[in-house]
Amino acid sequence: MNKLEMTEAIMTAKSSMSVTWEEAGSAIGASPVWLASACLGMNSAPAKTAAAIAEYFSLGEEVVAALEAYPTKIWDQAVPTDPLIYRLYEVVGVYGETLKEVIQEKFGDGIMSAIDFSMDVAKEECPKGDRVVLTLNGKFLPYKSW
Amino acid sequence: MNKLEMTEAIMTAKSSMSVTWEEAGSAIGASPVWLASACLGMNSAPAKTAAAIAEYFSLGEEVVAALEAYPTKIWDQAVPTDPLIYRLYEVVGVYGETLKEVIQEKFGDGIMSAIDFSMDVAKEECPKGDRVVLTLNGKFLPYKSW
Amino acid sequence: MNKLEMTEAIMTAKSSMSVTWEEAGSAIGASPVWLASACLGMNSAPAKTAAAIAEYFSLGEEVVAALEAYPTKIWDQAVPTDPLIYRLYEVVGVYGETLKEVIQEKFGDGIMSAIDFSMDVAKEECPKGDRVVLTLNGKFLPYKSW
Amino acid sequence: MNKLEMTEAIMTAKSSMSVTWEEAGSAIGASPVWLASACLGMNSAPAKTAAAIAEYFSLGEEVVAALEAYPTKIWDQAVPTDPLIYRLYEVVGVYGETLKEVIQEKFGDGIMSAIDFSMDVAKEECPKGDRVVLTLNGKFLPYKSW
Amino acid sequence: MNKLEMTEAIMTAKSSMSVTWEEAGSAIGASPVWLASACLGMNSAPAKTAAAIAEYFSLGEEVVAALEAYPTKIWDQAVPTDPLIYRLYEVVGVYGETLKEVIQEKFGDGIMSAIDFSMDVAKEECPKGDRVVLTLNGKFLPYKSW
Amino acid sequence: MNKLEMTEAIMTAKSSMSVTWEEAGSAIGASPVWLASACLGMNSAPAKTAAAIAEYFSLGEEVVAALEAYPTKIWDQAVPTDPLIYRLYEVVGVYGETLKEVIQEKFGDGIMSAIDFSMDVAKEECPKGDRVVLTLNGKFLPYKSW
Amino acid sequence: MNKLEMTEAIMTAKSSMSVTWEEAGSAIGASPVWLASACLGMNSAPAKTAAAIAEYFSLGEEVVAALEAYPTKIWDQAVPTDPLIYRLYEVVGVYGETLKEVIQEKFGDGIMSAIDFSMDVAKEECPKGDRVVLTLNGKFLPYKSW
Amino acid sequence: MNKLEMTEAIMTAKSSMSVTWEEAGSAIGASPVWLASACLGMNSAPAKTAAAIAEYFSLGEEVVAALEAYPTKIWDQAVPTDPLIYRLYEVVGVYGETLKEVIQEKFGDGIMSAIDFSMDVAKEECPKGDRVVLTLNGKFLPYKSW
Amino acid sequence: MNKLEMTEAIMTAKSSMSVTWEEAGSAIGASPVWLASACLGMNSAPAKTAAAIAEYFSLGEEVVAALEAYPTKIWDQAVPTDPLIYRLYEVVGVYGETLKEVIQEKFGDGIMSAIDFSMDVAKEECPKGDRVVLTLNGKFLPYKSW
Amino acid sequence: MNKLEMTEAIMTAKSSMSVTWEEAGSAIGASPVWLASACLGMNSAPAKTAAAIAEYFSLGEEVVAALEAYPTKIWDQAVPTDPLIYRLYEVVGVYGETLKEVIQEKFGDGIMSAIDFSMDVAKEECPKGDRVVLTLNGKFLPYKSW
Repeated sequence: MNKLEMTEAIMTAKSSMSVTWEEAGSAIGASPVWLASACLGMNSAPAKTAAAIAEYFSLGEEVVAALEAYPTKIWDQAVPTDPLIYRLYEVVGVYGETLKEVIQEKFGDGIMSAIDFSMDVAKEECPKGDRVVLTLNGKFLPYKSW
Repeated sequence: MNKLEMTEAIMTAKSSMSVTWEEAGSAIGASPVWLASACLGMNSAPAKTAAAIAEYFSLGEEVVAALEAYPTKIWDQAVPTDPLIYRLYEVVGVYGETLKEVIQEKFGDGIMSAIDFSMDVAKEECPKGDRVVLTLNGKFLPYKSW
Repeated sequence: MNKLEMTEAIMTAKSSMSVTWEEAGSAIGASPVWLASACLGMNSAPAKTAAAIAEYFSLGEEVVAALEAYPTKIWDQAVPTDPLIYRLYEVVGVYGETLKEVIQEKFGDGIMSAIDFSMDVAKEECPKGDRVVLTLNGKFLPYKSW
Repeated sequence: MNKLEMTEAIMTAKSSMSVTWEEAGSAIGASPVWLASACLGMNSAPAKTAAAIAEYFSLGEEVVAALEAYPTKIWDQAVPTDPLIYRLYEVVGVYGETLKEVIQEKFGDGIMSAIDFSMDVAKEECPKGDRVVLTLNGKFLPYKSW
Repeated sequence: MNKLEMTEAIMTAKSSMSVTWEEAGSAIGASPVWLASACLGMNSAPAKTAAAIAEYFSLGEEVVAALEAYPTKIWDQAVPTDPLIYRLYEVVGVYGETLKEVIQEKFGDGIMSAIDFSMDVAKEECPKGDRVVLTLNGKFLPYKSW
Repeated sequence: MNKLEMTEAIMTAKSSMSVTWEEAGSAIGASPVWLASACLGMNSAPAKTAAAIAEYFSLGEEVVAALEAYPTKIWDQAVPTDPLIYRLYEVVGVYGETLKEVIQEKFGDGIMSAIDFSMDVAKEECPKGDRVVLTLNGKFLPYKSW
Repeated sequence: MNKLEMTEAIMTAKSSMSVTWEEAGSAIGASPVWLASACLGMNSAPAKTAAAIAEYFSLGEEVVAALEAYPTKIWDQAVPTDPLIYRLYEVVGVYGETLKEVIQEKFGDGIMSAIDFSMDVAKEECPKGDRVVLTLNGKFLPYKSW
Repeated sequence: MNKLEMTEAIMTAKSSMSVTWEEAGSAIGASPVWLASACLGMNSAPAKTAAAIAEYFSLGEEVVAALEAYPTKIWDQAVPTDPLIYRLYEVVGVYGETLKEVIQEKFGDGIMSAIDFSMDVAKEECPKGDRVVLTLNGKFLPYKSW
Repeated sequence: MNKLEMTEAIMTAKSSMSVTWEEAGSAIGASPVWLASACLGMNSAPAKTAAAIAEYFSLGEEVVAALEAYPTKIWDQAVPTDPLIYRLYEVVGVYGETLKEVIQEKFGDGIMSAIDFSMDVAKEECPKGDRVVLTLNGKFLPYKSW
Repeated sequence: MNKLEMTEAIMTAKSSMSVTWEEAGSAIGASPVWLASACLGMNSAPAKTAAAIAEYFSLGEEVVAALEAYPTKIWDQAVPTDPLIYRLYEVVGVYGETLKEVIQEKFGDGIMSAIDFSMDVAKEECPKGDRVVLTLNGKFLPYKSW
């Protein structure tokens, strides 16, 4: 079973169980964003978590193996077209240099890791319209001379 | 004075004053990320704030006018090469579909605005290496039928 | 049933019923442009409307579910080749900066939303050849400082 | 004087006169959108209008000649990055096929001309936030067999 | 039956009848270039002509419907690789500005329509090697101010 | 003097003499399209013709040399944006395969040369709007086996 | 039978016969390079040669017809990645302007035809390592004025 | 003196001396193709040859140093537009796989080097039109396992 | 059996045998990196090694033949997206010119071969986190004049 | 002084001193590869090293400041054309998936850092031609679930 088939199996189970990523994550012991990324095939799950995910969705050994497999992370659109994803891309384009300025002033020459990294989505209720709050948390990696 | 010249003037002043975006922002009454983006020419400043920025950096009327001008937001690299900015792009590529899943499950069909939007950079100290914490806060905009 | 199969089912039904988007929209209580976009899979329909669409075309529950699903909006051609669609792209290329000038002068620094948005197609009869009248109506979203 | 220099001369004059495209257009006898496009160098002006524009802005013969010159319409970004212009591009991507469906059902096989064409920007006041109303009006051109 | 299947059906019939586009066009009452483009799926045929084409090739109602359908005109290669087609692309690249000069000097600011348009291929016999003569005939569309 | 400077010198002279390519071509003994392409730097002129062009426009030896120089034919836009040139590109996209069908049926496997080639622009007056008639004439070059 | 199936049939036959392109070419009366290009579907074969190829490989009428068909020459990679083919592309990139200099100095303004063209591969034995010798032979086509 | 200035100096000298690459090469003791590539800045010259070139063209020490410098070989157009260079690109596209077939059958798995490489241009006189003969000679480099 | 099917067969066998590339390489007498590249279809194996590989994985003659076949080396992503592969691409982008400087200073004008080439992966244990050590070893190929 | 001017100043000094990166690095106390990358503007130097570099090359305070500045790492060619750099790109294309296989088997799911990273160039003398030995050393960064 490859990652695509795995995703389809999990999405079907999730839909028939009518659970959210938040509910599933809290039952399994994983954050909703990471859980969704693993189920969509963009992260591998540790053995124990893979077993817990498969059990939660009442799926078999093949799904466990597919969840544990190390993914090759490929995306087709250099510039994404879906409006939700494009807006994130736009943030990188508009604020990329700004973030470089502010982060490197605060931390020195280096980068925020996208590997030693976590992310969270929260809802901020607001009378003028609710707000999405994304939090990205990545280790600072300094450049070194040698 | 165009935005490029404005940026150069401000960066020179900022460097000779040896102040950080945080210090400048706190004196001017603006967040460091927004302030940096306005000084780099990627956002326009309201008249009052433009005046405060110019005053803080001891710069003249031309800088005020250039800060108030509405920018045309252009970036040259569809896929950015600088490692700090690329990692943000990579996050969009790896987690784009995941965020679509989680946000739309939580909020319904719609997007996070990149216009009615703010952003913050914080440092999380950690014995294994400090961490960069980016917070993106955008209004949820629901699609409507008509 | 995915969106592609849904579109095929609706188009077949529509063709065998020999109805136009205008007739269908007026029966269902939706504008023709929005209805066509939902049936082509580029917008999700609210539950009630999805049910009305399926009923109008005598299609089943699977179609209702597919209409309600939140679409991932993808287009393959960065520069469209079909002449009807290319002309619209050309309008954006030729008049993009002009519209930025005129809109921002009138409304301040900000954008016209493509999410809180509606669109209409009308025919203007004219002896020298009929004219297509497209009306785009989007909420103005002002940039804010923070 | 080339179109770039012409645009700069007009923009400087317009700014020092503190007039809007609407005021200028109404004085000159041209719509604000067309006037802006001609002043930005994306359309040529008929001799009489060119003279009226130059006179209104107190500019000389060179500006008249530059306004009359036939422009080569070039844009650099196949996919525009400025958010205001990108949203228009997004509308073409999301609704391109929909508009093809609706227009060709109403008019037959053919296109909306981008040459025999006009465009208008209006403000619709609304308590939840003002709305931008763009109206595109182009001659329908039917395909012919031969 | 979609356009691809229609093309295949017609090409098979044409090949087994051993007729040329010229012979077919003269029997059906259409020019060879237009007929080929309609049979290759790049133009729609009026009802009467569609019927005549299907009859000529002894094909059924499905082919008539497919010929009448309005095509979405898509080509995959922004720069074509087949040498015959590339040479035409090269002519546009080498002589594009030249044609703009000569046409606009003769007709004023505007374009040659590719919609209200016809095209013809002729053979010019020549002792040093026969010559291909392509004639493009398109309505001149003037730009207008508004 | 390079080709760019040559073009500028000739265009200035042509404009101050208020002559058309047709008039210039008829005086010099060259077709208007070829003459324009040589003056725009996309073809080299034989020594005699180069001298005649320079004389006609009262320009010096440097222009003669620049006209005789063999050009490197470069265009920047793989897909042209100017509407007049784009329509020609669209014709290649829409009718490329059709022309391949019709030409190769008539001439055998091979191509129309873009080197041993000439082109002409004519005006066809028409009550519904004048028409542009482009004639392309290129030697047929058959593929050979070896 | 299309060209892809034809190629597969010939390659299978060639492999089971354990013959080289050189042996096949010499038996059929064609050069190895041309023969390979026709069998790979990038050239059409004259009727007689097509029959000889099919006979040599003990294949039927369908292969003869597919060999005679005029190919549409398409390649997917604008910049080829296979190292053997990339090196040829690199030669064009590194030496393209050089060859233009040397050829046009020797022959006048014009090009080397890629249609009236042949090519040969030879092995030059050398103690330091054998050498590949490619010979390209194309008719010179002069540009003409008209 | 950089390579661009060096090229300009040599081309000016060569033009005023009215010599060909063949004459220059024979005087200097270098092949015309290599000599042109070194003078165009696409190859470095050994010290002795660099001195001979500068002497032949009566140029100074700066030219010697610039000829000896190791070039960074950059070309701007992934797909060249000049017809002479495009035809070579087309040969790579049409015959790339064919050459891979024939070369690897003759030499084993490996490539023709573009570094340990030479090239020659000859004229083959022919009553139907002279022919350009390009000879590429590169060391065969076999892949190895390890 | 093509290379894709071969890879699948080997990967399945390898997985069910629970062996690493290191163990397999040491049993077969090949380095792990080269072995993996041959099994992934990016290198051909000499007859003897191909037989040893097939035997080790208990696979048949078809796999031997597929391993011996000369691959066409194609990759789809000009800029790879998988983070592990992208980091290597980034190294080429950031350090490409630096390596050119240092290698050519040490070896003269020329390149490091990617054909007469080997590569190795080692683990360097380190208390702060293990390190990956890649060693690339390629023959230096000097440019020559001719 | 920006990084470009800094590079020029250092290269001029280095050339007039006739020293190699190896000699300079050993005097300054830095590896030759890192030193070259800092001098080419692709890495920032710690204050002490920046001072040592400037002193070694007898350059002033401006060079020290420019060496300490954090660079924006930009490269123009997604696919590099210089043969030395392209071969490295080719290695990433041909061996990217192979390295992913071997590294992740050895280290688990994760990547080799290009930030916590060093690199070395050595010469391996060999009778058949010297060999370039590149060693890349990067920290392994494991993906984590959260």
